[in-house]
Amino acid sequence: MSKVNIKVLADQLQLSVSTISKALRDSYEISDETKKKVMELATQLNYIPNPYASSLRKKKSKTIAVVLPEVADNFFSLAINGIQSIAETKGYHVLIYLSHESFANEKTILEDCQSGRVDGVLISISSETNSADHINKLPANNIPVVFFDREQEGIETARVTTNDFDCGLMATNHLLEKGVRKPAFLSISQSLPICLNRLEGFKAAVREAGIPEEDMQIIYCTDNDSMYSQIKKILQSEHRPDGLIASVEKIVTPVYLACHELNINIPKDVKVIAFATLDTAPILNPPLTTITQPAFEIGKAAATLLFKGIEKSTFDLKKESMVIPSVLIERESTL
Amino acid sequence: MSKVNIKVLADQLQLSVSTISKALRDSYEISDETKKKVMELATQLNYIPNPYASSLRKKKSKTIAVVLPEVADNFFSLAINGIQSIAETKGYHVLIYLSHESFANEKTILEDCQSGRVDGVLISISSETNSADHINKLPANNIPVVFFDREQEGIETARVTTNDFDCGLMATNHLLEKGVRKPAFLSISQSLPICLNRLEGFKAAVREAGIPEEDMQIIYCTDNDSMYSQIKKILQSEHRPDGLIASVEKIVTPVYLACHELNINIPKDVKVIAFATLDTAPILNPPLTTITQPAFEIGKAAATLLFKGIEKSTFDLKKESMVIPSVLIERESTL
Repeated sequence: MSKVNIKVLADQLQLSVSTISKALRDSYEISDETKKKVMELATQLNYIPNPYASSLRKKKSKTIAVVLPEVADNFFSLAINGIQSIAETKGYHVLIYLSHESFANEKTILEDCQSGRVDGVLISISSETNSADHINKLPANNIPVVFFDREQEGIETARVTTNDFDCGLMATNHLLEKGVRKPAFLSISQSLPICLNRLEGFKAAVREAGIPEEDMQIIYCTDNDSMYSQIKKILQSEHRPDGLIASVEKIVTPVYLACHELNINIPKDVKVIAFATLDTAPILNPPLTTITQPAFEIGKAAATLLFKGIEKSTFDLKKESMVIPSVLIERESTL
Repeated sequence: MSKVNIKVLADQLQLSVSTISKALRDSYEISDETKKKVMELATQLNYIPNPYASSLRKKKSKTIAVVLPEVADNFFSLAINGIQSIAETKGYHVLIYLSHESFANEKTILEDCQSGRVDGVLISISSETNSADHINKLPANNIPVVFFDREQEGIETARVTTNDFDCGLMATNHLLEKGVRKPAFLSISQSLPICLNRLEGFKAAVREAGIPEEDMQIIYCTDNDSMYSQIKKILQSEHRPDGLIASVEKIVTPVYLACHELNINIPKDVKVIAFATLDTAPILNPPLTTITQPAFEIGKAAATLLFKGIEKSTFDLKKESMVIPSVLIERESTL
């Protein structure tokens, strides 16, 4: 292939050399449409105009990606609203990609995110994800990444989370104060830091309270479809717990349904607390005590950091990490 | 610009003429990566290989857009799952754009969808939308569009909906059978066909039952933030209804909260039925009678039609229209 320079681009696009030059510098004098044409041809022909080429190339999409496990969850839909509230002020589009808790999907999605389609990625990883290579490729390709809620260790980039360990501790202490002696922690993953941290908080609280090993349970509900029957089995076993901590929102409905089905009274027979931002929490039967995560704020903060990374290549995302605390809202399910 | 032909493309990409030719015909012998490169350069240089050029050009994104008002709604999250189940079998990405019930947002989103980013659009319109021009531009640019759930009249393209009129009638008759004499219909829009059709069903039922004009109410809750106080006011008025039809899911929580707050017993004082796919419906206090829409199936059917339109330019989407019926699930809120 012959050497590509501004003249070649100008000839091919039938534009002046100065227009091409301005377009490559992202000048306000040039229309977005023309900039797009110029950048596309420059990319196509592998023309690297200057050290900022990649950043200019990136700028053209005016789009960020949000990669998350699912949207049938109030936490994620509120977080999306927080993200969108920032993106709107920046004139950016938000594209939502769902991994459906599949590592393979997540990988394909992130490959797609490297095609110049987006300028940055906000990600909350799938429950299957336990490696970092597919995510590391993004910053390596100058696409900033910010984790929100579900992060992946082993990647040095910004993350916005909530105080999961403290809340695991706080939720468990709340149950213990209400008289629970056989607590069970319901998790969905053995690798997701949010689950691990909440679990560590749970373990610390039961240890401190002197609950014997055999009186506490840690249960993994990894399959959405079998969650209901799995929880029913636990509630029918001779080691029936008298307090449940649902470490994520989607465990709530199967827990309530199983209790109703088995005529197990919440909170008399079993007390329930859940990590959830469910807006139906106060109208459930009984109203659900929740650790309510600041979902909207987490989305907002993560997007704010991402735009700093997009707008200023010198901004060091590696140094950013933010923890926004959750709150316990007491309702009748732990009375 | 000099005439562009296959030879020019082959030279620039350092590929053989036959490879280029096969790539342009979308041959299985050629890798996706190579096809992408060829199509990009062909597009860039305005090389029109044959009458199917535009369809080939389109194919390169391997992405469809889903444009919808919000995701904090079980209907839409289930519909997305249905859409994704089809897209996955086709090897397509699904991008989700949220209009947040804003017509202006929806317009910008659809402009973005015309930039070659997506091969087709599935849309459920915002509650503010009451014109069709911004949507008509898509089929005019060879981007097939299929409506799901919330359609826009005045556009001749495929739509997958549910039997809204029948369900409005069915919901109202259910309340009347349970003894309701002063029914109120809670809507969120004066223009959305789903709301209008459900309302028409309501009107037909009350007319047939001989309910006097002054005993029925139609209430528009158009603002998410004021919904709760608006519903409270209605329940405190001297014309308090004894039966409520929530025409969309997001009306449910404010209705329950207002009743709890005012010590109004559901179903003794007021019976409630809602158009909802809420998975917490059976665990609410009391369990909620719903008109449950086949959200997953609607998403699946809409995506299936869209891919027919994408894959076969001769497939006439205008002639397609599908109605998948909803079902009434009786629970204690209308006992």
